[in-house]
Amino acid sequence: MRHFFMFTLLTLALTAPVARPALGQSDPLPSWNDGATKRAIIAFVDKVTKQGSPDFVPPAERIATFDNDGTLWCEQPLYVQIVFAVDRVRTFAATHPEVKDQPLFKAALGGDLKAVLSVSAYDRLQFLATSHAGMTTDEFTAIVNDWLKTAKHPRFKRPYTDLVYQPMLELLAYLRINHFKTFIVSGGGIEFMRPWTDSAYGIPPEQVVGSSIKLKYELRDGQPALFRLAEIDFVDDKAGKPVGIQQAIGRRPIAAFGNSDGDYEMLRWVTSGPGPRFGLIVHHTDATREYAYDRDSNVGRLVKALDEAPERGWVVTDIKNDWNVVFSWEKE
Amino acid sequence: MRHFFMFTLLTLALTAPVARPALGQSDPLPSWNDGATKRAIIAFVDKVTKQGSPDFVPPAERIATFDNDGTLWCEQPLYVQIVFAVDRVRTFAATHPEVKDQPLFKAALGGDLKAVLSVSAYDRLQFLATSHAGMTTDEFTAIVNDWLKTAKHPRFKRPYTDLVYQPMLELLAYLRINHFKTFIVSGGGIEFMRPWTDSAYGIPPEQVVGSSIKLKYELRDGQPALFRLAEIDFVDDKAGKPVGIQQAIGRRPIAAFGNSDGDYEMLRWVTSGPGPRFGLIVHHTDATREYAYDRDSNVGRLVKALDEAPERGWVVTDIKNDWNVVFSWEKE
Ligand SMILES: [Ca+2]
Ligand SMILES: [Ca+2]
Repeated sequence: MRHFFMFTLLTLALTAPVARPALGQSDPLPSWNDGATKRAIIAFVDKVTKQGSPDFVPPAERIATFDNDGTLWCEQPLYVQIVFAVDRVRTFAATHPEVKDQPLFKAALGGDLKAVLSVSAYDRLQFLATSHAGMTTDEFTAIVNDWLKTAKHPRFKRPYTDLVYQPMLELLAYLRINHFKTFIVSGGGIEFMRPWTDSAYGIPPEQVVGSSIKLKYELRDGQPALFRLAEIDFVDDKAGKPVGIQQAIGRRPIAAFGNSDGDYEMLRWVTSGPGPRFGLIVHHTDATREYAYDRDSNVGRLVKALDEAPERGWVVTDIKNDWNVVFSWEKE
Repeated sequence: MRHFFMFTLLTLALTAPVARPALGQSDPLPSWNDGATKRAIIAFVDKVTKQGSPDFVPPAERIATFDNDGTLWCEQPLYVQIVFAVDRVRTFAATHPEVKDQPLFKAALGGDLKAVLSVSAYDRLQFLATSHAGMTTDEFTAIVNDWLKTAKHPRFKRPYTDLVYQPMLELLAYLRINHFKTFIVSGGGIEFMRPWTDSAYGIPPEQVVGSSIKLKYELRDGQPALFRLAEIDFVDDKAGKPVGIQQAIGRRPIAAFGNSDGDYEMLRWVTSGPGPRFGLIVHHTDATREYAYDRDSNVGRLVKALDEAPERGWVVTDIKNDWNVVFSWEKE
C-alpha cells in the first residue's frame, strides 16, 4: 500500500507538467457552449494526441495557425492597424506636406476611411508603409506600444488589446497544453503585432507571421540599427498566407483558424494535407455583443470560404450561438 | 525517514525535466577542452540563467542564432549546397540544353567550381535558383533527402550529415537545457536545410532562417501546392543576417555563433544590444582533423570578424586547441 501510494504520487508528479485537462472535471473551453463546434474541436485534439491512434500526430508537427483580425480580436468598425495608421499619417503629414495631395493620404486625413478600405491589400500596405517607415524597428515598436496605451475602441471605449475574444484565448491555451505550437498568420503588419501578441495571446514574436516592409541594416552613430524602408517586402494575405507559412514555419500546419476570404487559401492549404486536418471559420453573427457581418462587409469580407465550408469540412463557429462570452470583461 | 525518501523522489521527479546539469558531476561540454573559450561559454550561460542576478535574462528572451556552414557542419572543400547544386545542374541541363552556354552553368558542368565560388552570393543564389526551382516545395524536400542519402564527402567518405561538429551539438544541447531557443541563421538555402536540421541538430524547420527563392501558391489538379520560382526572395548573408533575424524572429538574439565575415553584421547586431551578450567565432585551425583556413579561403573567408574580435569581445574558438573531438565518429 505504501509503495502504491508513492508510485501514485510519483506518477502524478512526473505527468503533471504535461497532463491533459480532464474534461469531466474542468472544461478547458468554458466560454464555448456545448454543441457541434465545441465537440468538433475537442474530437480533433483528442484524436491527434492519442498515442497509438491512427490519427496520432507527433507534438513537433502539431502546428496551428491563426488569422488575427476578426479571428483573435475585433476588427470592426475598422482594422485596428488602419486606425493606428490614420494617427500615424497625421503625424507624418505634419512634417511631409508633399503627401497631402496623394489620394489615399488625402482620404485618410479627411476621414474618408472607406476610400482606404476600398483599395487592394497591396495598395493599402504601400500606403501604410510610407507612414510606418523612416525609423528603426525599435522606434516603431515604441510608437505602437505608446499608441496602444491610449487608443480606445469607438464603441466599447476600451483599449484595443481588451478586444481579444475570450473563447479564442481558451482555444489557444487548450491547443498549447496539448503541445500544439500556435502561430499568428495575419495580413496585418508583422511589427504592428509583435509588441503585444505575447501578452495578449501568449504568442511570442517569433511565432508571428504577417505582412512586412523591407528593412535595411545600417550603422547609426557607429551603432547597428535596422531601418524600416517605405517598400513592401511581403503581403501575407490570400494566396500569400500559404507562402508566408512555408517561408516562416517551413511545414504545413495541421489546423487553421480564420474569419474571411483572406484565409481561404490558408484553409485550403492546411486542410488538404495528408492525415488529420482541422479548419475553422469564425462567423460574426452577434450584433448585440459584437458585430454581425460577412458577405457585404469591406472589413473581413466572407463569401467563398463560407460557401465552401460544408464541402471542405471546415467548422463554422457561429458567435451568437457558440460563444457564451465574447470579451472577458463583458459580464463585469 | 520514509517521508524524507519520498520527498526526495518527488523532488527529483518534479525537477528532473528542467534540471541544469551539475557541472561538478557531469560536464555538459565534454568535447570542449578546459580553457578560456569553454569557461567564457559557461560563465555567460550561468549569469543569464541565475535568478536575481543583474544579468538574468528571462527564458523567452534567450534567443541564440547559429550560422550553419563552417559553424555547425563542415563547409570544406566546398559548401555542401554547391556540391548538391552541381548534381542538380547536371539533371537540369539534361532537360534544359539552353542553359549550357550560360557562364556559371558551363563552369559548373565543366567542374570549374572556383568560378562558381568567385561570384557574389546574390549571383550564386540566382544560379542555384534556376536549378532548384520549377517544382513544389514537397518535391524539392524529397530531392534533398534522396541526395543526402547517397552523397559522400570527398575526403571523409561519409554522408554530409555525419560532418556536424560534436562540440557544437553539445553547445546547442547545453543552451537548450538552459532554456535558450536555438535558431540557424545561414546564407544557405532555407529549404535545403530544413529537411535535416531537426535530426542533425535538434533544430525544427520553424527555427531555420536562410536564403530563399520566391514561392507561388497554385492549384495543381485541384490540389493546393507551393511552387518554387527561379527568382531570389531573400539573401540571408552579411547585412542580410540581422534583417533575416528581425523578419523571422522579431527580436534581437542575446548570443550569436559564426565562422566567417558573412557573420560579421549578425555578430555586431547581436552583441551591441543592451544587457549581457555573447558572440563566438569558430576558427578553423586544424588541418589534421578537419581544415585550416581563414583569410585566403574562398569558402568561409574570415578577415574582418577575426581582426575585430578582441575589441568587440567576441570569443574565438581555436578548433585545434579548444576541441578534443571534432566529429563524433573520429575515434571509432
Ligand atoms: Ca481576418
Ligand atoms: Ca559560415
